[in-house]
Amino acid sequence: MTSSPSSLRVALIGNGFMGAAHSQAWRVAPRFFDLPLEPEMSVLVGRDAGRAEIAAGRWGWAASSDDWRSVIARDDIDVVDIVTPGDSHAEIACAALAAGKHVICEKPLANTVDEARAMADAARAAAADGILAMVGFTYRRVPAVTLARDLVAEGRVGTIRQITVSYHQDWLVDPESPFTWRMDKSLAGSGALGDIGAHAIDLAQFVTGHDISSVSGIIETLVPERRDAHGRAAVVTVDDRALFTGRLDNGVLGSFEVSRMSTGRKNSLRIEVAGSLGAIAFDLEDLNSLQFYDATIDASRRGFSKIIVTEPEHPYIEAWWPAGHMLGYEHGFSHQVSDFVHAIAAGEQPRPSFDDGLQVQRVLDAVERSSHAGSVWSAV
Amino acid sequence: MTSSPSSLRVALIGNGFMGAAHSQAWRVAPRFFDLPLEPEMSVLVGRDAGRAEIAAGRWGWAASSDDWRSVIARDDIDVVDIVTPGDSHAEIACAALAAGKHVICEKPLANTVDEARAMADAARAAAADGILAMVGFTYRRVPAVTLARDLVAEGRVGTIRQITVSYHQDWLVDPESPFTWRMDKSLAGSGALGDIGAHAIDLAQFVTGHDISSVSGIIETLVPERRDAHGRAAVVTVDDRALFTGRLDNGVLGSFEVSRMSTGRKNSLRIEVAGSLGAIAFDLEDLNSLQFYDATIDASRRGFSKIIVTEPEHPYIEAWWPAGHMLGYEHGFSHQVSDFVHAIAAGEQPRPSFDDGLQVQRVLDAVERSSHAGSVWSAV
Amino acid sequence: MTSSPSSLRVALIGNGFMGAAHSQAWRVAPRFFDLPLEPEMSVLVGRDAGRAEIAAGRWGWAASSDDWRSVIARDDIDVVDIVTPGDSHAEIACAALAAGKHVICEKPLANTVDEARAMADAARAAAADGILAMVGFTYRRVPAVTLARDLVAEGRVGTIRQITVSYHQDWLVDPESPFTWRMDKSLAGSGALGDIGAHAIDLAQFVTGHDISSVSGIIETLVPERRDAHGRAAVVTVDDRALFTGRLDNGVLGSFEVSRMSTGRKNSLRIEVAGSLGAIAFDLEDLNSLQFYDATIDASRRGFSKIIVTEPEHPYIEAWWPAGHMLGYEHGFSHQVSDFVHAIAAGEQPRPSFDDGLQVQRVLDAVERSSHAGSVWSAV
Amino acid sequence: MTSSPSSLRVALIGNGFMGAAHSQAWRVAPRFFDLPLEPEMSVLVGRDAGRAEIAAGRWGWAASSDDWRSVIARDDIDVVDIVTPGDSHAEIACAALAAGKHVICEKPLANTVDEARAMADAARAAAADGILAMVGFTYRRVPAVTLARDLVAEGRVGTIRQITVSYHQDWLVDPESPFTWRMDKSLAGSGALGDIGAHAIDLAQFVTGHDISSVSGIIETLVPERRDAHGRAAVVTVDDRALFTGRLDNGVLGSFEVSRMSTGRKNSLRIEVAGSLGAIAFDLEDLNSLQFYDATIDASRRGFSKIIVTEPEHPYIEAWWPAGHMLGYEHGFSHQVSDFVHAIAAGEQPRPSFDDGLQVQRVLDAVERSSHAGSVWSAV
Repeated sequence: MTSSPSSLRVALIGNGFMGAAHSQAWRVAPRFFDLPLEPEMSVLVGRDAGRAEIAAGRWGWAASSDDWRSVIARDDIDVVDIVTPGDSHAEIACAALAAGKHVICEKPLANTVDEARAMADAARAAAADGILAMVGFTYRRVPAVTLARDLVAEGRVGTIRQITVSYHQDWLVDPESPFTWRMDKSLAGSGALGDIGAHAIDLAQFVTGHDISSVSGIIETLVPERRDAHGRAAVVTVDDRALFTGRLDNGVLGSFEVSRMSTGRKNSLRIEVAGSLGAIAFDLEDLNSLQFYDATIDASRRGFSKIIVTEPEHPYIEAWWPAGHMLGYEHGFSHQVSDFVHAIAAGEQPRPSFDDGLQVQRVLDAVERSSHAGSVWSAV
Repeated sequence: MTSSPSSLRVALIGNGFMGAAHSQAWRVAPRFFDLPLEPEMSVLVGRDAGRAEIAAGRWGWAASSDDWRSVIARDDIDVVDIVTPGDSHAEIACAALAAGKHVICEKPLANTVDEARAMADAARAAAADGILAMVGFTYRRVPAVTLARDLVAEGRVGTIRQITVSYHQDWLVDPESPFTWRMDKSLAGSGALGDIGAHAIDLAQFVTGHDISSVSGIIETLVPERRDAHGRAAVVTVDDRALFTGRLDNGVLGSFEVSRMSTGRKNSLRIEVAGSLGAIAFDLEDLNSLQFYDATIDASRRGFSKIIVTEPEHPYIEAWWPAGHMLGYEHGFSHQVSDFVHAIAAGEQPRPSFDDGLQVQRVLDAVERSSHAGSVWSAV
Repeated sequence: MTSSPSSLRVALIGNGFMGAAHSQAWRVAPRFFDLPLEPEMSVLVGRDAGRAEIAAGRWGWAASSDDWRSVIARDDIDVVDIVTPGDSHAEIACAALAAGKHVICEKPLANTVDEARAMADAARAAAADGILAMVGFTYRRVPAVTLARDLVAEGRVGTIRQITVSYHQDWLVDPESPFTWRMDKSLAGSGALGDIGAHAIDLAQFVTGHDISSVSGIIETLVPERRDAHGRAAVVTVDDRALFTGRLDNGVLGSFEVSRMSTGRKNSLRIEVAGSLGAIAFDLEDLNSLQFYDATIDASRRGFSKIIVTEPEHPYIEAWWPAGHMLGYEHGFSHQVSDFVHAIAAGEQPRPSFDDGLQVQRVLDAVERSSHAGSVWSAV
Repeated sequence: MTSSPSSLRVALIGNGFMGAAHSQAWRVAPRFFDLPLEPEMSVLVGRDAGRAEIAAGRWGWAASSDDWRSVIARDDIDVVDIVTPGDSHAEIACAALAAGKHVICEKPLANTVDEARAMADAARAAAADGILAMVGFTYRRVPAVTLARDLVAEGRVGTIRQITVSYHQDWLVDPESPFTWRMDKSLAGSGALGDIGAHAIDLAQFVTGHDISSVSGIIETLVPERRDAHGRAAVVTVDDRALFTGRLDNGVLGSFEVSRMSTGRKNSLRIEVAGSLGAIAFDLEDLNSLQFYDATIDASRRGFSKIIVTEPEHPYIEAWWPAGHMLGYEHGFSHQVSDFVHAIAAGEQPRPSFDDGLQVQRVLDAVERSSHAGSVWSAV
């Protein structure tokens, strides 16, 4: 560090796969971005003390604990980073905010609208005291996605006419894939809808700058029963796939499809925005590129341009490598840490806020309601 | 010709863009395919005598006429090929069948379900006398599409789980594009839905081998007023875009999106079928290729294969060029002529039949009904 | 036809695969292009009378013959179209020009530089009498290629810095593929070099507007022996692959690679031209598209644009279908017929001329000489 | 860490862009890979003490120094990691090996064959004492490249027939790009050839498993003069582009093209290997994918498969994220650290060895010799 910033002491709650991603971001971001505060990886909390200790060692946290309440009560913690399953988000986040800790919480914000609303209320109250909260829709911080948002905001696609959004994965195609907590509604809240549909919704709202105000949709469970790790049959209580149409608050209709049964598609989050002057198209499987169609160019000279989003002028890129050197999945988490730390230092509300997370949750809820009511249009 | 087949005398009704495509097919197909009957391009019929004469000369028809009824009455006509706007299909087709002529009719079969039903009834009646009728969903005969159907039928994708279908064009993006008959519901029946949605629906049903039995959807008109060629304002009475979910008769849900306002997309008819053992994906903008994902290959060695569908083993290809030499849009029409002539010679029902065309029409109608009723599920 | 042009009576010499392509062009071009003269498909000539008769019937020629000399002597023939193997091009073309016939001759112009020079001399002499000759490098007339040439000529890539050209096919990958005349140097002249290398060279010279003046290269035969149709071993006396560097007359270096052993590549003729202001890239396996990189656009907004070359503003397209409807391999031959007929009517030298064909032949010869001399630079 | 490994104390020599990449690898690798020894980031060395201190703080090194000799002499250093410009590699590496330190040295190994040979000799001598050396061709450790090598080694492409290799960048297209040390032969050794050509050569040799034994080629300088940071004209004494043909020790010919003037290509290192049973193709601009053509599949069902190389079965992937989550440029450096540390712990020679680096250097030298001698074939 060229200057000597004061430190920001972080507690990570959770030790699953997302814990690894967040740990990497706390470790790496300060090495590439000039941060106004210096993160310290103070303590990792897990339900099982032994596993938490191992994870803390592996991921570089100074200490570990199996008691998140006591950690939150500590004076020497400034930030609580929540990467637990969705059913515990509300309790931990609200407690942390009440304890005066800044909070970053993985998406989806919660498993229910009620929980999400409580969290958003808590965040708004805490903000009055300078305590800030953010939800972790990291795909906003893929440079190509940020660039897409910028192009739309600059008017490069003109008036938005239509959007098409999808998120296809295939990790549940095999019916022999074992039952996990992600297929249990009581823990996961929902299935493809809440897990990857939440990303699709946030992406659409972020890139267009407009919220979804009503939806018509249907969800389905394609493999209704699986065996758990012990070979016992278990009923899948969440969806595998969701199809819905959403109307943005500017009247634009968007089509949405998300599925974990899209054979051959590994992680294909796509958005296409078509407007009166142009279009943008993005696919997370090609995450360093953005397709841009500029309809103001002469008809015989135009086409979708594949912009390789690794130039120093592109969002977040200057911190990394020379042009043409690709970033990966995890870089979005470092961008998130950087933006979060800057927001804390500046005392400004980071985005996506808990209100943004609540909005996504309300859309998810409306989709489920619409599905249960025969796909009638349901207000968000 | 190696043998000396008897001839098949054809009358073409209509002289728009589709007339050029059909004429090319009647001219070209016999040069590449061994046909059991030899087509003769006897007469072209148009509403305007002068324009019909010019078109006949340009496209190589022996004569021209402005009176389709008298042409249908002639003894020396065996086939009536209808490429007029949809509002006249029913009258001409039914008359031609009644006059004992084989009929090929452009899609969509008609502008309304009632018309389409009358046509299908007429076709079934005529079939009893050996008179055959076919509707012109030519994209079935793009070799890559036929191959897709074959792969699905052979079980190479396993049990179908989901389908995703779209058709994106952008020729109405510019609000200055003038008003034409295609935007007038009384002539065109519907807009993007009937024009390109019909293709999307037929494609889905053809590739999967299953009919759509119910839908939930919405249609919209993005540019509600345009100026006609004389600069007068005219109300667009058809849709620009349709979004719907369709359930196949095997229970599978498909997502559908069609639009003529998809900035930058010129002619992108896409289908993706995901199953338990694999997936296929096709895009008409890359019409000589089929993407195939074989999930039975070892996980570390598999991916979507881009099959270039120009090998002699591929459907229709042996008649054309050596491997690697691409076909274009118009070749599907030659394949259609070849299949139709073979069916006539064999006395067998060609596909897609008028019943197939009626089924598409019923889906279109159900989408409109669902849209008007708040996207509730509507039976086909 | 809107006017009543006088006719242009054509004799086709040859009845192989290229005969089918040329026949299709003579048949189709007048239906789509406004030609100042009306082609008549008068006579097809083949070595074997029976096969010639069959081909004439199949492809729509009014008559057939097995004697090209007598056909050339006829008063009622205006154009001689030569699609025989390369070893007979010189004799037929020179005789036809001497007899006052316009000549179109398939590429490569000849099997040797001496033959090509004699043809070019004959063509120049005939031109003084208004008799015109053209060589059939049809890929110049793929709309995307013509557009590439236009962009370069307009200065859209700026000063050309480098070019990269390749032509990959894989039809000889299987060592069990039988021996044919194309592997016999006495008939074919050369292998991949003369067959597809000729295309690569003409394409480079056409798109850049500059001739190759010297080369350094190597040719190789990867499968030196094959069995003929009777199962007898036969020595392959031509190359399978050629690698060379060519210097254009403006000093620019180009890399060239052509092969018939490029496993998985069906018909991949590619060129990339990089300049101070932009770049173009083309691949014949995606023949309706041109990639264009405009380096004058802001660095954060630019990328290779995939121009779908089917707009009415694009070369040759207005004659065909609406935007977004793809052309195929054979359309270039119709464009060639159209351009040739226009040149004849106007009395202007069509391009590529026999001089252009000779220039390609001289490059091919220089590559062979360089290869035999240890890849030293050899003047063209 | 699950066990308590002994530590491996590392000194990094150099503080340019590659220093950031190596630092990231030393920091990150132990968090994802189970390493038998625990790296400690002990000291960073730079020529300028102030800048070294800043870099050490930024990148997380415990200390800094401006005296590499004293650092090498320290007892508490086990590994020396060299990321300086090429002209100092030999001196530092030989000294470090003589001091009993394991050495990892950035590519190219050296600026001259003599230097490289001295280093390889030193490495072989040190190896007798258990001191190990590796050169940093990290692209070997892009998972898709490792997979390509595996497929070739397993015989999945059959007998290799031909290879095509290129490396295109465009960062020097603008003639206003300022003169830097990379354009000065005395510091950089060579230009595009040594910088990116070295990668192309190592990649070809790694994937095929065969060394290049002779070459014919040409190098050129497209912009021979630039202005330095002070606006003074400076002569570019290195190449911008190199074209060469290389013969592998198994007789296979490869075409090579490398350039820093390839307008629009940001970091496109490509290799295609065509064999009797299949082909592989890779492009670093799409670094998470490998194209594989399996010619043993039925002709009508095969095509290039785009394998997304993010499955747990793929090389290095299990350490990272779930399937479908992309890696970036820098991950190869972590793989390199992991492999290097494992080799040290096992006392086994890591690859690429200094001998491998010497072999690349000898090919580079042969290309330059061939270019100066009129592209005659030159033995490596």
